[in-house]
Amino acid sequence: MTYDVVVNVSLKEAVLDPAGQQVARVLHNMGYAMEDVRIGKQIKLRFQAADLTEAKENARQMAEKLLANPVLETYEILVTEP
Amino acid sequence: MTYDVVVNVSLKEAVLDPAGQQVARVLHNMGYAMEDVRIGKQIKLRFQAADLTEAKENARQMAEKLLANPVLETYEILVTEP
Repeated sequence: MTYDVVVNVSLKEAVLDPAGQQVARVLHNMGYAMEDVRIGKQIKLRFQAADLTEAKENARQMAEKLLANPVLETYEILVTEP
Repeated sequence: MTYDVVVNVSLKEAVLDPAGQQVARVLHNMGYAMEDVRIGKQIKLRFQAADLTEAKENARQMAEKLLANPVLETYEILVTEP
């Protein structure tokens, strides 16, 4: 079966996000009362798996091995059932 | 009040995503039955606004003016009430 899975990858709290800080600065200069901006990745995967359990496990492996850097980043996995 | 707003920015369907295609290729070589991979941005904003309506409107303006490129990208806005 085909599954649509979203993997959201974000920097850990303790890791600085210079790009996010720069965006916050620009938005502040545009007049918005910014407190924080963090920029992460949203990766949309479509793949075949036998069932929901396998789809979730595959996505977890992809995130661990390739999509996220476990030293600097955390991730969350959202599976849409077909 | 402080609002947490997530802006998900993704390439339009018609726009090629070479980075996503490369990730799909690598995942395929790792043994997963990939059909598609698209890589977008997930931007987490925290800012002050008078109420929920203003928070949503501010986030829409930020997306239009700075966070997304309306020619190539679409965005969705998710507001968490404080």
